[in-house]
Amino acid sequence: MEQRKKVQKKICDLGKDVLSKINTGKSPFIEIPIRSLSNVVWDEKKGLLKLGENKSKRYFFNVGMARKFMQTFLVASFCNDIVKENIHASIRDMYYNLKRTLGDTHENTFEDQEESNPLIVDLETSLEVLREQLHLIADRKGVVAGNVKIRDRGDLINWSKLGSGGWSIPSTVENIKFEKVNAKFILVIEKNAGFERLHEDRFWKKYNCILVGTGGQAARGTRRLIKRLNQEFKLPVYVLTDSDSYGWYIYSVIKSGSMALAHASEQLGTPSARFIGLTISDIADYNLEKSVIKATDRDIKRAKELLTYPWFDHKEWKREIKLMIQKKIKAEIEALSSRGLKFLSEVYLPEKLKKKEFLP
Amino acid sequence: MEQRKKVQKKICDLGKDVLSKINTGKSPFIEIPIRSLSNVVWDEKKGLLKLGENKSKRYFFNVGMARKFMQTFLVASFCNDIVKENIHASIRDMYYNLKRTLGDTHENTFEDQEESNPLIVDLETSLEVLREQLHLIADRKGVVAGNVKIRDRGDLINWSKLGSGGWSIPSTVENIKFEKVNAKFILVIEKNAGFERLHEDRFWKKYNCILVGTGGQAARGTRRLIKRLNQEFKLPVYVLTDSDSYGWYIYSVIKSGSMALAHASEQLGTPSARFIGLTISDIADYNLEKSVIKATDRDIKRAKELLTYPWFDHKEWKREIKLMIQKKIKAEIEALSSRGLKFLSEVYLPEKLKKKEFLP
Repeated sequence: MEQRKKVQKKICDLGKDVLSKINTGKSPFIEIPIRSLSNVVWDEKKGLLKLGENKSKRYFFNVGMARKFMQTFLVASFCNDIVKENIHASIRDMYYNLKRTLGDTHENTFEDQEESNPLIVDLETSLEVLREQLHLIADRKGVVAGNVKIRDRGDLINWSKLGSGGWSIPSTVENIKFEKVNAKFILVIEKNAGFERLHEDRFWKKYNCILVGTGGQAARGTRRLIKRLNQEFKLPVYVLTDSDSYGWYIYSVIKSGSMALAHASEQLGTPSARFIGLTISDIADYNLEKSVIKATDRDIKRAKELLTYPWFDHKEWKREIKLMIQKKIKAEIEALSSRGLKFLSEVYLPEKLKKKEFLP
Repeated sequence: MEQRKKVQKKICDLGKDVLSKINTGKSPFIEIPIRSLSNVVWDEKKGLLKLGENKSKRYFFNVGMARKFMQTFLVASFCNDIVKENIHASIRDMYYNLKRTLGDTHENTFEDQEESNPLIVDLETSLEVLREQLHLIADRKGVVAGNVKIRDRGDLINWSKLGSGGWSIPSTVENIKFEKVNAKFILVIEKNAGFERLHEDRFWKKYNCILVGTGGQAARGTRRLIKRLNQEFKLPVYVLTDSDSYGWYIYSVIKSGSMALAHASEQLGTPSARFIGLTISDIADYNLEKSVIKATDRDIKRAKELLTYPWFDHKEWKREIKLMIQKKIKAEIEALSSRGLKFLSEVYLPEKLKKKEFLP
């Protein structure tokens, strides 16, 4: 409730600011942080990718900017309405809802979604709110299980009593209230099948943890949920991915944010997250040589890119990435199944947790 | 429990049959239904795509078949083990688990997953069981909400008390026990965002239905869940997709099965399912002209293919498909948001349900 009012106030202030500029005879404009790569900076202290200070001004009395200016306010007004009404919409719903022909002209408010999508990020950055706080939902993905009780839309939900299914993480987790959190850490696993295996073995129960399956690159809702649990309950986060440049990048996005969403890193990134595996060293350590896959040129190219990212600038990571490039190999989480289907839950993870063998 | 024993018996019988052939001095073989398109038939009476009668024999004493013969039994033995142990594995887990070098040779059991995947379907068809009954899990996708209580792995789960999240449908729904089903019909929606919109508006509560979101093409677990609810509780199924050849095909797969999984149609298809929308006619009927999208050449090509499928051989469908081809247009579910965000839940669906305006 409180939060909705804050967001509405921010939107209204944006409008009032433009109105006051008009009243004083000035050309109205809004300031929007620049989101190109040149303005993405690595905040080493916080361990997060963030937007820099550069901003651009969008003027109303400018032939090249007037259309976008008008569109920005259509989007802002739409968000104000749905926040007020307390309903949510997808960005596609918004596009269709706002698309129309203006007055007696042949001018459409929007021609396609490519026009409306970036404006949402413009508003996120200039108002310093998350898209979810503007009540615009992103695609849901991700599932969770563990000894946790939450309250959501009035329902009391017990994450330990959902059978084989788990709780499907919605795109917006802002309004979830954690009623009881009984866990020592959070284990995030990139693969759905791995989640199901660990869930079936009741790993979360035996090791008193919260098990999160991301199903590939983690969705915004899933990243925000991890962040909230980490922050509000001081739970360590351990991430398990394939042993290759793409898996490692999935980890780094959960930890430090992404370049495309650098403006939202503070809300979505969990800088204290640690990497539990798989590493290239694991291949020899756990006798997985028979299960390695030859790395493609694309894998190697991506690995070389990781070497240039400051957030992978740790000797442990450099060692693993270089090993991958040098040996031209990679491995999947499922490679551990060559040692037995329960090897992951009964040997690999317990050993790593016991030895605290994590990468930064 | 009963079911697991049945599956184990089928696997053992396959082994015994081969053994008895060896004992009588015959070259051992197994018979496997042919799965190429030429052997996929349309069962008009049942309203399902099915495999025809053609079978091929796989011999052990045949240079071209011996490797595959051996692999088939490795897979069968693996499945027998996990069914006995009552654990589940992904098909990738299985591949890694079975991959090894044979004795003193340089021969690997499998070179890659492309070798092991088709053998699972061979077993499904020749044993007449579902992959899920062999305890091999497929990727999970799909979410459900409604006035239903189920028991799964000992937990009692109430689908009406899961907040904004809904229940994430697992890949295997065979062992779910329906404790209480209070619903008049099942509404299946192709889009996640549409599911969230309807879920937020508590559509399932107002209209006493079960709401299923498939997130694109429905996963096996989701199709099986729909089928079980339809069959065991005589619930009508209505499917809502985009108005285009791909959306309509998603509907037809839920209803009649797919060519690739023709052997599993009896378990996965729901022939009594009806199509609630969107149709091309809806565009004019609901003033959505401003929200249509130009159909691409690929869309049109796909639409022309649908016209050749016997399961679309209904005058209502031919009319809609021809309208699409002729007008070269399509529309998304979200187009209804141009009439207001709650138009779908408060006007469109209630009207269609009241008028019983369904396509066959």
